[in-house]
Amino acid sequence: MINTLLKHKNNLVKSMEEILGEANVLSSYDERYIYSTDSTNITNPEEIADVVVFPVNTLQVSKIMKYAYANNIPVVARSAGTNLCGACLPKHGGIILNFTKMNKIININKNNLICIVEPGVIIEDLQKAADAYNLFYPPDPSNLKVSMIGGSIGLSSGGPHTFKYGSTKDFVIDLEVVLADGTIVNTASECSKDVTGYNLTQLFVGSEGTLGIITKAVLKLIPKPESKRVMLAYFDSLDDTSKAVNDIISNLITPSVIDLMDKNTLQTVESFYPSGLLTDKAAALLIEIDGFKSTLDEQYKKIIEICYKNKSAYIQTANTKEEEERIWISRRSSFGATAKLAPNVVTEDVVVPRENIVPLVIGIRKICNKYNLKTCIMGHIGDGNIHPNIALDLRNPIERKNFENAKTELFELALSLNGTLSGEHGIGCEKSYFINKAVESNCLFLMKQIKKLFDPKGILNPGKIF
Amino acid sequence: MINTLLKHKNNLVKSMEEILGEANVLSSYDERYIYSTDSTNITNPEEIADVVVFPVNTLQVSKIMKYAYANNIPVVARSAGTNLCGACLPKHGGIILNFTKMNKIININKNNLICIVEPGVIIEDLQKAADAYNLFYPPDPSNLKVSMIGGSIGLSSGGPHTFKYGSTKDFVIDLEVVLADGTIVNTASECSKDVTGYNLTQLFVGSEGTLGIITKAVLKLIPKPESKRVMLAYFDSLDDTSKAVNDIISNLITPSVIDLMDKNTLQTVESFYPSGLLTDKAAALLIEIDGFKSTLDEQYKKIIEICYKNKSAYIQTANTKEEEERIWISRRSSFGATAKLAPNVVTEDVVVPRENIVPLVIGIRKICNKYNLKTCIMGHIGDGNIHPNIALDLRNPIERKNFENAKTELFELALSLNGTLSGEHGIGCEKSYFINKAVESNCLFLMKQIKKLFDPKGILNPGKIF
Repeated sequence: MINTLLKHKNNLVKSMEEILGEANVLSSYDERYIYSTDSTNITNPEEIADVVVFPVNTLQVSKIMKYAYANNIPVVARSAGTNLCGACLPKHGGIILNFTKMNKIININKNNLICIVEPGVIIEDLQKAADAYNLFYPPDPSNLKVSMIGGSIGLSSGGPHTFKYGSTKDFVIDLEVVLADGTIVNTASECSKDVTGYNLTQLFVGSEGTLGIITKAVLKLIPKPESKRVMLAYFDSLDDTSKAVNDIISNLITPSVIDLMDKNTLQTVESFYPSGLLTDKAAALLIEIDGFKSTLDEQYKKIIEICYKNKSAYIQTANTKEEEERIWISRRSSFGATAKLAPNVVTEDVVVPRENIVPLVIGIRKICNKYNLKTCIMGHIGDGNIHPNIALDLRNPIERKNFENAKTELFELALSLNGTLSGEHGIGCEKSYFINKAVESNCLFLMKQIKKLFDPKGILNPGKIF
Repeated sequence: MINTLLKHKNNLVKSMEEILGEANVLSSYDERYIYSTDSTNITNPEEIADVVVFPVNTLQVSKIMKYAYANNIPVVARSAGTNLCGACLPKHGGIILNFTKMNKIININKNNLICIVEPGVIIEDLQKAADAYNLFYPPDPSNLKVSMIGGSIGLSSGGPHTFKYGSTKDFVIDLEVVLADGTIVNTASECSKDVTGYNLTQLFVGSEGTLGIITKAVLKLIPKPESKRVMLAYFDSLDDTSKAVNDIISNLITPSVIDLMDKNTLQTVESFYPSGLLTDKAAALLIEIDGFKSTLDEQYKKIIEICYKNKSAYIQTANTKEEEERIWISRRSSFGATAKLAPNVVTEDVVVPRENIVPLVIGIRKICNKYNLKTCIMGHIGDGNIHPNIALDLRNPIERKNFENAKTELFELALSLNGTLSGEHGIGCEKSYFINKAVESNCLFLMKQIKKLFDPKGILNPGKIF
């Protein structure tokens, strides 16, 4: 049904220019190629968009969708393209809807504890804007300095603060969505509580642009924690690391962050971005606690005590804003540092119930050793969510094949530990081949029927999730 | 399509007995009548179930659904029947699936921070069981001593703790659901983060049994707050009350509860359950703060300061467990106390963005005065969610008519203030007549199509939501 061989490409470009003006339409090969990539390193030069457009308002998006619907043209929404699962690759060509020009924070309402934003707002910009009102928007994917709200809703992104505060889905109250045929809908109200009918909002969140195009979002904000403290606790064994995490939580403490870096990660980050990480330890926990100043000392003391009781080798505490920033930069550099080990880096995103975290990490190492893949393991241990950053040369067919095999074994491992394929990065076209093993066939059938209902012509981001 | 006039009722009862055993099937008129009521006082004697069944496991539910599907028989799931919107009234007869015998807490997993429960578990029982592990399940509808998990998921119930912790939907990780044709599915995994495919879980949450029958739930638990403090702050004006709420939240404090009781509520509760409430004040805020002991004093002092700055007339603080309990009993008695004013009490559940709370409360009073309805107003002011408890005699046709008119005006008022029909009680058959005003027609169309997809024969709780 999908018109992959666009016979009327000239018409397409001309029609887009009529809707958007020439300045908002790109059609040269180079431009189309650039916007047909994302952070997954898997662009196929034969699968590139026919046109790239930059709408500036919802009405334009609606007009574009009406045209695409009438002409069976695939539409792929993207913003910064920082996703790691091929979620915005135009597998069947068509239109790339780039939201970088719809980047307004329309409103921050302190009393209603909400903000209204367009999809092209950079997440960190929203956080800073909220901060000025003493409010906090917690979801913080590692690339929050560039990644944008639209994509983060499409993938229900998480980040280190998910353990305490939840992921993007927990902050989406209402969405403006353009449906496949160009109809504009609002899924709910601006009320933080709303049980009036089915939860269409959460159906769109995480649907990777396959059910509709998000053009505006009402997001929940919370009062900003008054203060925070950051520390790095090193351990000589993974078992002790995991026990320390369990003990901290059993002691009624909910850290705002509890992330893991393994030895390879510590060594790799330290060698490219030296900041005094201890590179001879088996693992480190990045622990952040937040809340009222008055409560941090007590929590901190308890955590120190628990870590040492679980044989922590050393605990480094940030005493200044700069030290805190340095620890965070180390943590956020793990992907970038691993990228320096080889021409490419790929990141996976498996998740298991937390009690299975040790067998998961050990299993990942085994698989990567078996396939001779350099791997730095880090992740959100509090959520059971692990990211192996794998350095390799994707141009080398053997390495590529090894990676593909390792990936499948990694997914099988996660499923065998009651886990699943993705905690916060999404499925895209990178994991879709495996979804039938992770999702029950009857649920998959329902999902596909929902897809058909919302997108009868299959023009919305085809080739993703399923 | 629905077989409302069951010609083969004997067959139905016999078939149910074959699946469930005689002891788990009720078929006398009295028994069927009793289980055809809920807390809404609107049972129509001509709309009662043909049979009431008590499954003890999921397989039985599946067999019941297969039978119902083959024979076009409506099925209404219920547990305690404490809902306030007619959500489990058998409007078209058929089978009442009563979950009170599926009441096991199957597992509480301290490290994974989850529990697995059957639908018939009483919410307070789950809270107590979690407490024994130093864990906390926050959703707490007022009737939590009797209301059950199944219904609370079906309606996405809230409660006073929603302001800080979220409502039921925020605690549902995975569901076992029996579909209309008897198929058993699991919607997700036991991982707290899972973005593998569409969010079917949240489609079932709040769907009031119209898309499938929930037979098991994986729920999120959180570390228990170490300590809490409860206070009642009285005000001479509603404006000051609202300003105090805004100021508390602006000062980075997130109370675990911030509820409102108006003068009528204070007077009515005090006259039937005397506990020393001040009955000459315009309103009172029930404020609870929780967290580490070390932080309560500071928060408490700030709140007191803010309340007095906003002209609080008096602040009553619970200094003992007993005093705390007394304040909570007053608050939870508002429905019961109002019920003593007249033969019936009905509760509404409108919600608005918090900045519109004062015009909402004033507007509700105006409407109720206009229709001569005795009304006690309370609710979760932090969430903008207000419950007018209306005392009346539903047997009196004039009072009934007045109430119906007032209800419609109340909904119109909420919508005019950017609010909606229900924050936490659901739509059921009580508000379905108005849903097309609250939900956009295109969204309603999508919801109805989803309903058709999940329930092609329309046998799942017909006559609800739409």
